[in-house]
Amino acid sequence: MSHVVVPARPLGRLSDSWRHCVGTGRLNLALRSDYQESLALVQREIGFRHIRGHGLLSDDMGVLRVSEGETRYSFTYLDQVFDRFLELGVRPFLELGFMPTALASGEDTVFWWKGNITPPREQAEWAALVRAVVAHLIDRYGLDEVRAWPIEVWNEPNLTAFWKDADQQAYFRLYETTARAIKDLDAGLQVGGPAISPGSDEWWAPFAEFVASRDVPVDFVSRHAYTSGPAQHIPFGTYQELLPPQSLLEQFDAPRRRLAGTALAGLPVHITEFNTSYRPDNPIHDTAYNAAYLAPVVAGGTDLVDSYSYWTFCDVFEEVDVPTSLFHGGFGLLTHRQVAKPTYHLYAFMARMGAHVLARGEDHLVCRDDDGRVTVLAWQPVGGTEGAAAPERHTVRLSVPAPGERVFTRRERVNEHDGNAFAAWRELGRPRSPGKRELEVLRDCARPAVEHRAHAVADGRVSLDLALSRHEVTFVEVLPVRPEEHPGLDDRRLLGGSDDRLVAEWP
Amino acid sequence: MSHVVVPARPLGRLSDSWRHCVGTGRLNLALRSDYQESLALVQREIGFRHIRGHGLLSDDMGVLRVSEGETRYSFTYLDQVFDRFLELGVRPFLELGFMPTALASGEDTVFWWKGNITPPREQAEWAALVRAVVAHLIDRYGLDEVRAWPIEVWNEPNLTAFWKDADQQAYFRLYETTARAIKDLDAGLQVGGPAISPGSDEWWAPFAEFVASRDVPVDFVSRHAYTSGPAQHIPFGTYQELLPPQSLLEQFDAPRRRLAGTALAGLPVHITEFNTSYRPDNPIHDTAYNAAYLAPVVAGGTDLVDSYSYWTFCDVFEEVDVPTSLFHGGFGLLTHRQVAKPTYHLYAFMARMGAHVLARGEDHLVCRDDDGRVTVLAWQPVGGTEGAAAPERHTVRLSVPAPGERVFTRRERVNEHDGNAFAAWRELGRPRSPGKRELEVLRDCARPAVEHRAHAVADGRVSLDLALSRHEVTFVEVLPVRPEEHPGLDDRRLLGGSDDRLVAEWP
Amino acid sequence: MSHVVVPARPLGRLSDSWRHCVGTGRLNLALRSDYQESLALVQREIGFRHIRGHGLLSDDMGVLRVSEGETRYSFTYLDQVFDRFLELGVRPFLELGFMPTALASGEDTVFWWKGNITPPREQAEWAALVRAVVAHLIDRYGLDEVRAWPIEVWNEPNLTAFWKDADQQAYFRLYETTARAIKDLDAGLQVGGPAISPGSDEWWAPFAEFVASRDVPVDFVSRHAYTSGPAQHIPFGTYQELLPPQSLLEQFDAPRRRLAGTALAGLPVHITEFNTSYRPDNPIHDTAYNAAYLAPVVAGGTDLVDSYSYWTFCDVFEEVDVPTSLFHGGFGLLTHRQVAKPTYHLYAFMARMGAHVLARGEDHLVCRDDDGRVTVLAWQPVGGTEGAAAPERHTVRLSVPAPGERVFTRRERVNEHDGNAFAAWRELGRPRSPGKRELEVLRDCARPAVEHRAHAVADGRVSLDLALSRHEVTFVEVLPVRPEEHPGLDDRRLLGGSDDRLVAEWP
Amino acid sequence: MSHVVVPARPLGRLSDSWRHCVGTGRLNLALRSDYQESLALVQREIGFRHIRGHGLLSDDMGVLRVSEGETRYSFTYLDQVFDRFLELGVRPFLELGFMPTALASGEDTVFWWKGNITPPREQAEWAALVRAVVAHLIDRYGLDEVRAWPIEVWNEPNLTAFWKDADQQAYFRLYETTARAIKDLDAGLQVGGPAISPGSDEWWAPFAEFVASRDVPVDFVSRHAYTSGPAQHIPFGTYQELLPPQSLLEQFDAPRRRLAGTALAGLPVHITEFNTSYRPDNPIHDTAYNAAYLAPVVAGGTDLVDSYSYWTFCDVFEEVDVPTSLFHGGFGLLTHRQVAKPTYHLYAFMARMGAHVLARGEDHLVCRDDDGRVTVLAWQPVGGTEGAAAPERHTVRLSVPAPGERVFTRRERVNEHDGNAFAAWRELGRPRSPGKRELEVLRDCARPAVEHRAHAVADGRVSLDLALSRHEVTFVEVLPVRPEEHPGLDDRRLLGGSDDRLVAEWP
Repeated sequence: MSHVVVPARPLGRLSDSWRHCVGTGRLNLALRSDYQESLALVQREIGFRHIRGHGLLSDDMGVLRVSEGETRYSFTYLDQVFDRFLELGVRPFLELGFMPTALASGEDTVFWWKGNITPPREQAEWAALVRAVVAHLIDRYGLDEVRAWPIEVWNEPNLTAFWKDADQQAYFRLYETTARAIKDLDAGLQVGGPAISPGSDEWWAPFAEFVASRDVPVDFVSRHAYTSGPAQHIPFGTYQELLPPQSLLEQFDAPRRRLAGTALAGLPVHITEFNTSYRPDNPIHDTAYNAAYLAPVVAGGTDLVDSYSYWTFCDVFEEVDVPTSLFHGGFGLLTHRQVAKPTYHLYAFMARMGAHVLARGEDHLVCRDDDGRVTVLAWQPVGGTEGAAAPERHTVRLSVPAPGERVFTRRERVNEHDGNAFAAWRELGRPRSPGKRELEVLRDCARPAVEHRAHAVADGRVSLDLALSRHEVTFVEVLPVRPEEHPGLDDRRLLGGSDDRLVAEWP
Repeated sequence: MSHVVVPARPLGRLSDSWRHCVGTGRLNLALRSDYQESLALVQREIGFRHIRGHGLLSDDMGVLRVSEGETRYSFTYLDQVFDRFLELGVRPFLELGFMPTALASGEDTVFWWKGNITPPREQAEWAALVRAVVAHLIDRYGLDEVRAWPIEVWNEPNLTAFWKDADQQAYFRLYETTARAIKDLDAGLQVGGPAISPGSDEWWAPFAEFVASRDVPVDFVSRHAYTSGPAQHIPFGTYQELLPPQSLLEQFDAPRRRLAGTALAGLPVHITEFNTSYRPDNPIHDTAYNAAYLAPVVAGGTDLVDSYSYWTFCDVFEEVDVPTSLFHGGFGLLTHRQVAKPTYHLYAFMARMGAHVLARGEDHLVCRDDDGRVTVLAWQPVGGTEGAAAPERHTVRLSVPAPGERVFTRRERVNEHDGNAFAAWRELGRPRSPGKRELEVLRDCARPAVEHRAHAVADGRVSLDLALSRHEVTFVEVLPVRPEEHPGLDDRRLLGGSDDRLVAEWP
Repeated sequence: MSHVVVPARPLGRLSDSWRHCVGTGRLNLALRSDYQESLALVQREIGFRHIRGHGLLSDDMGVLRVSEGETRYSFTYLDQVFDRFLELGVRPFLELGFMPTALASGEDTVFWWKGNITPPREQAEWAALVRAVVAHLIDRYGLDEVRAWPIEVWNEPNLTAFWKDADQQAYFRLYETTARAIKDLDAGLQVGGPAISPGSDEWWAPFAEFVASRDVPVDFVSRHAYTSGPAQHIPFGTYQELLPPQSLLEQFDAPRRRLAGTALAGLPVHITEFNTSYRPDNPIHDTAYNAAYLAPVVAGGTDLVDSYSYWTFCDVFEEVDVPTSLFHGGFGLLTHRQVAKPTYHLYAFMARMGAHVLARGEDHLVCRDDDGRVTVLAWQPVGGTEGAAAPERHTVRLSVPAPGERVFTRRERVNEHDGNAFAAWRELGRPRSPGKRELEVLRDCARPAVEHRAHAVADGRVSLDLALSRHEVTFVEVLPVRPEEHPGLDDRRLLGGSDDRLVAEWP
Repeated sequence: MSHVVVPARPLGRLSDSWRHCVGTGRLNLALRSDYQESLALVQREIGFRHIRGHGLLSDDMGVLRVSEGETRYSFTYLDQVFDRFLELGVRPFLELGFMPTALASGEDTVFWWKGNITPPREQAEWAALVRAVVAHLIDRYGLDEVRAWPIEVWNEPNLTAFWKDADQQAYFRLYETTARAIKDLDAGLQVGGPAISPGSDEWWAPFAEFVASRDVPVDFVSRHAYTSGPAQHIPFGTYQELLPPQSLLEQFDAPRRRLAGTALAGLPVHITEFNTSYRPDNPIHDTAYNAAYLAPVVAGGTDLVDSYSYWTFCDVFEEVDVPTSLFHGGFGLLTHRQVAKPTYHLYAFMARMGAHVLARGEDHLVCRDDDGRVTVLAWQPVGGTEGAAAPERHTVRLSVPAPGERVFTRRERVNEHDGNAFAAWRELGRPRSPGKRELEVLRDCARPAVEHRAHAVADGRVSLDLALSRHEVTFVEVLPVRPEEHPGLDDRRLLGGSDDRLVAEWP
């Protein structure tokens, strides 16, 4: 533990890249009320700017239908989904895929819900579909609005699971067809790719060369980042080893490094998916450890890339199967029915950080607002599988600039006990289908613990000694105090005589 | 047109059988917010008692899952659906089906969403599933509650589309397995079948004989009723001929007639589906004609059977395909996003009828509440395909008993113009994906026209001359008036002088 | 009746002055839920920019309190009121008054609720109060926000009812003290007066001279406008004669005419109150006549002044007494519990007019939006007490520019029957305390009648023949139609054969 | 500290008398949204059965109005108030008073809002008013409903502040007039009195004698209970000495003791007001001490009387003045804008206690529900002014019967830090008009601290060692656990290897 003296002058503004985008289960699931209630909560307390998920063009969205030989582009569901996104203050980050069965060149599918992952039978049919969809969006929401929506071509084409034979040339062809179809509609629309998975950085050079050589439009590049090893399957679940958190920041930075010197250097970089594990059934996602692990990533990645999109905002998700238990290792910040996981609070704390960064460290981020409010995010550093066990306590000691003679602090804590519904759920016997009362218990136990006190300011500073429990992420808000005069007031007289029983105890 | 003198003494209470049950798209769709918003509206304004739909046990509800060789009964979605139903004041009318893939004896499926329609591989596995589901429901909602939910075995087993080879013996075997599994849990649970489609009355005798000969439990019998002929397909739609409305009442009455003299005589009869057309893409459902056609059925069937369940309460429905247009001939009382169709109003009018029946006729139903409020439902009689075109006007003239010296009437009208969003939608150019403004226009045009006036009472009666437009269904509410004294009041002085400009004009 | 050919080119934008401000009962009433529910509705459907009422500083708002010799400025209620206003999207138009008892020089009061109308005992105490209040507002809402709130000094000081002896010099002194106290805080705050009642135009010259001679700050001028004669009292009500509507427009224009050539020429002019009658118990406010009377004023005054504030948005109002009946002649656009009066609809129609004015006439206003939507507000012209009775019908015939081949029109009507809850209430026997069912009936009868149809466009124009009933105000929306292709569609086949029964009927 | 072995067999049901009634500020305040939002919250989390407040007949409710010589009974506001009460699930406990000015014999008033406290000029006029009001209530809400509303005659007639000269004979006259007027309407209505203040037990004998001698109807008796001494005024506040809590239970019991042997023996007894201090500006109400002080009273009084009504549910209250600060010593369980005080939690905890009492003690109450859930309310005993300071810690040790092998406990704590918005508000500098952010901080700090864990059950019992902080009231919920099997599950593998880092830690 060291004592950090937080400077009074900001290092710069806190970038919004940490909440520029968030991931979601396939778009058909966005029709559900559980999903929408989760998104409403997330938007109220976190406020992501964009949302990205698979399956926009898959059959269950009904976008391309054929009946009695007649083809129709249809937007019944797509409109319902995007209307609601916009009502909730979040914009689509479009991912174009997977392939409508009627256009597909094969029958290969991915996921329990069978998204078709084959190239189009005819590029022209695909181009027509892309044009129809984007033109409809412009018609419905206006060109200015749709220009603000990045459009990404397909998902992880470097994996055979997601793209027939992981055929790079076929992907480039699809990319070109798509990018040109979009730019034909309007040059101001933003298109990008290649949306590759971790461990495929060998795609960068050919992709850069391909688009440069053929003058194909590209407005941004994208990839994904995960730190988990191979899946160790158990019934209804998976365990995996994890690399240390720093690996995520390195993956974020990879496109910039790899594209240096190419025609794509300097383009915006979007990490369109990231998390610890890439499995939707790994219980690590439900833990306080996950939050502590990601704290330096979420707090520390803000200047590395243009966005890094947590995969995903809620557990309404069905890639492997229908979830069979409330906690089941899903990606979500929230479980079904809106029980907050520890990582949810990490994001909610970030959303309350001040506008200007005062200090960054390996276990803290300190910000300040223009009105003098100072905020601290602190965490216990944790390693991956190879790391040592985190000790029972971790102390962060900060000297923070403060106005006036007194300040008020409120602290919120999330750790192995506090703000930890997963812990309470395990204590409850891991009920798969909790009833109404148990859900209320879990929601109640999911709230961070709150502490408050007054501090005397000395020499324009206040000293915060933050003792963190195991795997804790903590948030502190330091508010200026303007005591209001009140002649006659004397807490010693609260019981009518003169004693100290009910006197306030600070500082 | 005749002049009906409505008697002052009631014929009896108006039975609730007309709203005892309503149909719904497959239960997975009940997770959607559009569905739930529609159901909330329907419950607020109509208030059905039970709701019945397919797919409770189909894969997309996730009730039976297998992972790494482990089988699990899971209620993640089922709980969400039934919790919400009960919150909205409607109870399940359980239909047990279709077959989870893991238990199925074959791969045959029905519908776009591929419900498996084969018998179980093993009766014991099916019995175990049934017991697990019903036991979970009892555990979650209490035995008293679940005893109030009728449990129907499968759907239309007489059709090869719904039951492999329409194998009657296989159905009887399934019925027996299921009924015994349920009664093993609790003798007070209600089980029934055979849920047959129209045109299969030859099933009644063997079903009665089977259950009687083996002493199989049966608490009610069920069948369906429709009046449409073969589908005439067009792209994204269907046209069909229709029998006259009386055919529906005859179908309602068929089980009672057929079972007379058997061991099943006297059991409750539930018509677990009915409508004009059995196709979810026949635009007849969207018309005022549909409401006028069904008015004598809904108003007239109350004493024939224990329930007749309109198929379905809303257009969130996917049997043929994802709907590609706001109006598309769906079964719903409401379109997607809650635009009321004329038939919705027929039900909403029924929900406001008084408790006691004063008069029934071929174009009217008159009721009265204990507090003197009289209500009239009137309609223009229409025929089916072979019937003559309805004239431009139809007049219903009623002499209604009334208290005091004056009454107030409010009338609501639904016809080819009023309360007719389908008419407005056609005038708008049939927009498949209406925007926010157009949806508001349609919702506005979907509201019945309102008329109000005061009537003088003469000899304890008031005369209502109701001129109905083409295909009109109209509702009239007659409210007693107790004029409140107000010395000095003189509408002739409203403009300060003495003139008649602003004087009220009745009677 | 004439046939007006509406030009295709706009005359200019429709100014927002008609909704720049609205009146309210005393601010203490803004704490009530009935009030807030009414305001929420009004803001949703009309959207006023500012709201102005009496009593900000009166004792029941608790702004200046004295206890055991200690004086305190307190904002418990004021914060609740203004927080809610801003949440509902409407800003205060501050009226500084009446006098806190603790500062008053006398005991004279106005209204049932006894607002003290005497000058301050000490100008310095008043100045301190003004500074404390405005400083608090700036502290709470920010300087930029409060700069957008006009601040008016007192109310109708030319009347002895509102200002002790209607002492002009005393008012000028108060004005100067107040204006200087405000500008001391910030020069960008807006202050004005003299808020005089109709018939007091002799105040303009001395006011202009006073502020000019002493260089007193003034950012706007204000007065009121009413057209009613002396009150003819009856129990719980009042009748009055009315001048013709044109008188209101003349009153609006008076400040500009009177101040021409003075130092105040060119200042913004706010009509901070207007209505037909100035009595809160004159039933004229509840009639369709009131809406027809005000239609040319609301539609026609937009370019005359910077605002004209309808007095008041709802019937939660207590100047004469607690209202003893649902309809009681209150000023409100809405009754208690949100039953819309005809004049409410006049404003709701205005809120839906397009951005650009195409035509103005004595019985119509035609606008168009950028997307081609054309809107028409039309009314039957009516006179005052001396005017002739309006005929049963009034026809407005317009040739309107229209795109494409077909348009859709929706029309809403408010007259002596439609959209007229007052008519229904009279038919119901004038129930003073309507129960839940009667309130629903009244709300239902308060909705405008809706008509819709399609029109063929000929030569880029469509002809609207609008037949208006007595005292009607009507709104028409003309929407472009883009018919969507649908091969195979044939309404003649709706009943499976080929007949015309269900064919749509336009044009 | 002792170790209490809680028996497994219940002592009896927990009576509802503790929530049979709650007090409120004058009824006019019930029109306010802040009030209604507070009541909605209180009803959701506590659920009082009745609500009682002053001012039903005072001028500001507008019940009796005179205009141009015409008298009218008017229910504009009364209907709004009672409609809302019933919507929120709480029934009126009617208190008939104070005197409408138009009926009063004098001008004496009580409170800042000037309730007239003189007898009626004419008994007949008062009787007519009572009849009109009660008849209206029966007409609007039904006789069965109104029979469930106790009707109390006047308030504290033994004090000159509330009843002119505290004239006992005049009160008896009023009581008789009122009781007879009510019973004339319906014999099943419940009427009672004399609603006397503490220290006036000498009224019981004459009241009993009066009603017995004249055969005046009386269905219940009522009095008030407070433990505070004389007011020690400071600006905007009051301090007072307090008797020990036991004094309240003695006061509750006084009517029963005093009426033994009279004709009124055995009648229901309602304590229609109680609290520590009777002053609405004594900050003791805002403290955790107040909750700890009242815990044995609220938990212990259930079998003493038929109701004891906490005065009052929220701080929307104006007897002394308009409150000038968020915390100001008001009676409320909630401050303005719904910040919960510690005593709110005492009631919310009581509302979650089980149905059957297992144990009662000087620092605890233990209950159980039929489904096995056990609940504990525990507190640190505190004395009044003369009592000793409570120590820093108080331990309650309970051995509680428990099913199965494991249970889950959730504990909520309220003390000088946790669940204590008043403490946070003092730390914040006692802001009188907190802004939006500060209100959120206060609401957050007002939530009880939550702890949860699993316990092993040994010999059918679990041991709870509850360490309470100073002035703590704590609630513990013990839930049965049914662990759900999950083959393959092994928390040691959460990080993919085998370590204990993420293993759950119980018991």
